[in-house]
Amino acid sequence: MDIKDFLDKSAVSVEKALNKWVPSARTKPTTLHTAMRYSLFAGGKRVRPALVMASSLACGGDESAALPFACAVECIHTYSLIHDDLPCMDDDDFRRGKPTSHKVYGEGIAVLAGDALLTIAFEMLQHAGPTKRYTHRDFLAELTSAAGSRQLIAGQVADLEGEGRDDLKLSDLKFIHERKTSALLQCSARLGGMAANATPRQLEALTEFGYKVGLAFQVIDDILDVTQTSENLGKTAGKDVNAGKLTYPSLMGLERSRKYAEKLTNEAFASLLAFRGRATHLKGLAEFLLARDR
Amino acid sequence: MDIKDFLDKSAVSVEKALNKWVPSARTKPTTLHTAMRYSLFAGGKRVRPALVMASSLACGGDESAALPFACAVECIHTYSLIHDDLPCMDDDDFRRGKPTSHKVYGEGIAVLAGDALLTIAFEMLQHAGPTKRYTHRDFLAELTSAAGSRQLIAGQVADLEGEGRDDLKLSDLKFIHERKTSALLQCSARLGGMAANATPRQLEALTEFGYKVGLAFQVIDDILDVTQTSENLGKTAGKDVNAGKLTYPSLMGLERSRKYAEKLTNEAFASLLAFRGRATHLKGLAEFLLARDR
Repeated sequence: MDIKDFLDKSAVSVEKALNKWVPSARTKPTTLHTAMRYSLFAGGKRVRPALVMASSLACGGDESAALPFACAVECIHTYSLIHDDLPCMDDDDFRRGKPTSHKVYGEGIAVLAGDALLTIAFEMLQHAGPTKRYTHRDFLAELTSAAGSRQLIAGQVADLEGEGRDDLKLSDLKFIHERKTSALLQCSARLGGMAANATPRQLEALTEFGYKVGLAFQVIDDILDVTQTSENLGKTAGKDVNAGKLTYPSLMGLERSRKYAEKLTNEAFASLLAFRGRATHLKGLAEFLLARDR
Repeated sequence: MDIKDFLDKSAVSVEKALNKWVPSARTKPTTLHTAMRYSLFAGGKRVRPALVMASSLACGGDESAALPFACAVECIHTYSLIHDDLPCMDDDDFRRGKPTSHKVYGEGIAVLAGDALLTIAFEMLQHAGPTKRYTHRDFLAELTSAAGSRQLIAGQVADLEGEGRDDLKLSDLKFIHERKTSALLQCSARLGGMAANATPRQLEALTEFGYKVGLAFQVIDDILDVTQTSENLGKTAGKDVNAGKLTYPSLMGLERSRKYAEKLTNEAFASLLAFRGRATHLKGLAEFLLARDR
């Protein structure tokens, strides 16, 4: 199994499904749908959808059952980027190599495009079928919890409130990253499992895997922020440091941060034993995310 | 049945349920939960929850089954007010008689409090039980459609884009109001019916009733905007006119606007025949909304 090949293929499937399920740019109000599509099809890495798909495969599921969940988490992720980039938040001009939504469409439309993507994420769940073990009530519980005020949004609040403070500790940084990044990655892994009617034991393994991979993902993100160029990242590099934000490299240095990401990835691998060799895509994905340079 | 009594009682039930289901102000991140609660408990009229409850009663349902839906629509409504009041949208300083969210907590937290209320609206659906005819998939479809990019958000986009234009017609105004107001009122009526396992015929009647009452509600809102004081309304009066917004009174005059609201309300009454006398709360509610002065 070639992981780049898997990533490319799953990105193509997800983009095809998003294109089908998100109203066309000609649907009224056209500005809004154009803005939603602008951010959604800006060439993201599609890490969360790939994690949904790989988790489903590990539990013996097929691609079509996992697609609605893959689209849902990508819509949540994209909405959170649009809102986080607003002038009243992180005030960012570039994302995925292009000007941010509010730079192109103005702040009002950017707020509304984010709102619409958050709403359509829940609409995507309709396209999923219930399985023997899981119903739409479970899907709802999963997605609202990860995206809600105690997880994804809590992370952004803590991030916003932590800016410029120099008294934050490693535990504060972990609080932010568990919520801002890990929660949705964990949710992606779990939803992929649910799509494939995962056993409780498999779901538990995916929960652990998603959590660890999610933390490692954010440590790597922090490292890339200081070691890569804006051009390569497609977003403003060095931004966290300039904004006085707490990051792993600033707290523990580059070398130890890298070691920490490796440790987390190895712990993630350990949880894959539950799948007895069927988790090759998950393993490949975790390795890919650790080694990535953007 | 005294309608004021019914409205008071249903508001008390809804506020009790919201208080139970929305994280306390002491839950981390405290700023966020405090902001969510500030707007949610600012003393709104709770029209949408009352419509959910009255629709459920008309179909023979009980209060507890309707409560999750009543809370869900109120969370959607409150989120939309917070975002609509932002400086990049309608830029409003007062709402429900108090300073708007961004005035108190800043724009960043206001955006996130709105996001969190939108997300928790879907979380509320978990507290509902499926009925014989309707599952969580139906509840999801209902709420995402009314709150989504073709309805509620489309209305706000059209409103935003229509500001200051003097070439708009009655049909444009109707496009905005159907989406910005009618959609969520219609959805409230339908969800109340679903909570009570409504027959297809009852659901159809509620659909028609919610649509007409929703349009009448907005016509009255436009009238109150020019005839009442800010103090009485709890929000800035005369704002639509000052912002160069198209309204019913500006298009057809006060007298004809009033007649139009009466006509819509009478049409709404006609749809209640399907309930054979059990729709007294719905009738009382529509009368109350027509006669209100705030």
